[in-house]
Amino acid sequence: AATFRASEHQHIRYNPLQDEWVLVSAHRMKRPWQGQLEPQLLKTVPRHDPLNPLCPGATRANGEVNPHYDGTFLFDNDFPALQPDAPDPGPSDHPLFRAEAARGICKVMCFHPWSDVTLPLMSVPEIRAVIDAWASVTEELGARYPWVQIFENKGAMMGCSNPHPHCQVWASSFLPDIAQREERSQKSYHSQHGEPLLLEYGRQELHRKERLVLSSEHWLVLVPFWAVWPFQTLLLPRRHVRRLPELTPAERDDLASIMKKLLTKYDNLFETSFPYSMGWHGAPTGLKTGATYDHWQLHAHYYPPLLRSATVRKFMVGYEMLAQAQRDLTPEQAAERLRVLPEIHYCLLKK
Amino acid sequence: AATFRASEHQHIRYNPLQDEWVLVSAHRMKRPWQGQLEPQLLKTVPRHDPLNPLCPGATRANGEVNPHYDGTFLFDNDFPALQPDAPDPGPSDHPLFRAEAARGICKVMCFHPWSDVTLPLMSVPEIRAVIDAWASVTEELGARYPWVQIFENKGAMMGCSNPHPHCQVWASSFLPDIAQREERSQKSYHSQHGEPLLLEYGRQELHRKERLVLSSEHWLVLVPFWAVWPFQTLLLPRRHVRRLPELTPAERDDLASIMKKLLTKYDNLFETSFPYSMGWHGAPTGLKTGATYDHWQLHAHYYPPLLRSATVRKFMVGYEMLAQAQRDLTPEQAAERLRVLPEIHYCLLKK
Ligand SMILES: O=P(O)(O)O[C@H]1O[C@H](CO)[C@@H](O)[C@H](O)[C@H]1O
Ligand SMILES: O=P(O)(O)O[C@H]1O[C@H](CO)[C@@H](O)[C@H](O)[C@H]1O
Repeated sequence: AATFRASEHQHIRYNPLQDEWVLVSAHRMKRPWQGQLEPQLLKTVPRHDPLNPLCPGATRANGEVNPHYDGTFLFDNDFPALQPDAPDPGPSDHPLFRAEAARGICKVMCFHPWSDVTLPLMSVPEIRAVIDAWASVTEELGARYPWVQIFENKGAMMGCSNPHPHCQVWASSFLPDIAQREERSQKSYHSQHGEPLLLEYGRQELHRKERLVLSSEHWLVLVPFWAVWPFQTLLLPRRHVRRLPELTPAERDDLASIMKKLLTKYDNLFETSFPYSMGWHGAPTGLKTGATYDHWQLHAHYYPPLLRSATVRKFMVGYEMLAQAQRDLTPEQAAERLRVLPEIHYCLLKK
Repeated sequence: AATFRASEHQHIRYNPLQDEWVLVSAHRMKRPWQGQLEPQLLKTVPRHDPLNPLCPGATRANGEVNPHYDGTFLFDNDFPALQPDAPDPGPSDHPLFRAEAARGICKVMCFHPWSDVTLPLMSVPEIRAVIDAWASVTEELGARYPWVQIFENKGAMMGCSNPHPHCQVWASSFLPDIAQREERSQKSYHSQHGEPLLLEYGRQELHRKERLVLSSEHWLVLVPFWAVWPFQTLLLPRRHVRRLPELTPAERDDLASIMKKLLTKYDNLFETSFPYSMGWHGAPTGLKTGATYDHWQLHAHYYPPLLRSATVRKFMVGYEMLAQAQRDLTPEQAAERLRVLPEIHYCLLKK
């Protein structure tokens, strides 16, 4: 029998954080691609558009006028999926028909007054301001809700409908599905091994090095062993931190700098403004926080869809939707490709 | 407090089959959409293209020449994600780094010799031939593998790279993630309630009617109470059936006819060749089948991405990838819209 090589031989890997499996079939990158191409980014975005509801001074859908903000700007989403006061659906009459109340709040956070920048093109102090705003909104909404989901959809491919650099914050009265899974896994790992799952995981990856993309004094970026998206990464603090507000000033500065490096590498990979969805996961918040949540480790997930080029994405479709996630290159190959990319943005080099 | 109305008030619903929650925020359909539009289907597909590797008489990537088939045609995928003979990754050295062997086989099944037809435009006997081919391939591969996943990716939006009507069959040496979840849920429901989950569920939906799209002597089509995709449906036999090969000739004819109706409605919804991924789930197969799997009920899932029109899809991105699935209209609204659509294909009416 042949010797196993991950880059040649399909196998399955387990995600202990979300309790899921992925099929890794790296030999599949050899097949030609004749399917759909994504539209190229052609149009340039104007720095300021008075009709864009995310710009300073613009009028939003509800008639409010944005201030002439010059840093980050947080406001209520005009079309929120979660509202604070929805009534309860009441008890269900059958175990197969269970509905429950959902309350919450949806906010939008602009990263910068200009529409024509993205995080990797912002300065480290500007990114630091975004991190501070993330920490404050977590603190503010976390006082009232058990889960505060910060996420950024970047690029039209990821359903983002406005080019102005921004993210969203959805706080909910319930622990969302994926938060529940991570809660369960981290809790059970902690009770079995006496330390947080992701703290040990980060330590192992720092030691093994094969999947490491970046490391700094306080942070690690790696392609997880169980990554699903081609260039998915996990951003982890090196110390045990449960939630964003706990980060020290030094950790925040360092985070701004490593985020800039990671996102620059992403853009450099296919010389495009790299689309992704990203988001932060920290320990649950809210009133019930008698629990210490020592098993939680703060982290961010980056899920970028591109596979082969700026126009060829990975489709998570039939097999993935009906059976199991599947990837076409190994996490180690992805990490290696990201690792060797320059930390200077291709747009700056070309000028 | 206001009275709860599902179409006005966000709430969460539980999927007892896959043990997941979905956030239903139907009031969100009111927001305007300024994001990405999908490319319109413009080019017409030629009935026969000698260079298309799926056509009768064409030469495939491996040099083989297709027969001049005139019904369905099954062959080995030339770029398989699963191969029969991959070596074992061996034992893992740490609980957070678990990999296991994966073996299997990937096949492609053409539905029809012509490239310019789709299932809803095929005749009922032609669809019946596809169903028979599904049953045989399940039997054949099921003798060797515990899971045989039949799935169809339809449309470029669903990563389908060839317009010729076809589906895929991936059989694996492992029970994929979603199969495992359905196994667990159905098993535990059966042991608690003494009957298959989906048998009782179908009966309830037939009685409640709000989410029913189609029903026939032997089959039901409904938008499940916990649907995630805007126009997702579940296709269920009315009798307890564990796997495709068990279907009687009458049930197969009836299935062909209800599939034609459902897919015609789908195409009529936005007057387009409706993209989707669909697939069959039946009881596990393979050698270990001492187990009776009485808790399993055969079913097909249809997952179509379109939300508002032929060019505006639902993006399952940031919140959905990081927190929880979210939908923008109620399953009841979706069922109502599908129910009232004609059962004659818009392409046939226009001629
Ligand atoms: O095998 P195909 O049709 O080339 O590929 C398509 O279906 C596969 C199975 O769902 C996916 O893994 C691919 O991303 C998708 O493009
Ligand atoms: O809120 P937005 O940016 O308009 O919408 C985008 O993100 C949401 C949260 O992930 C998704 O539900 C939408 O499908 C997507 O288009």
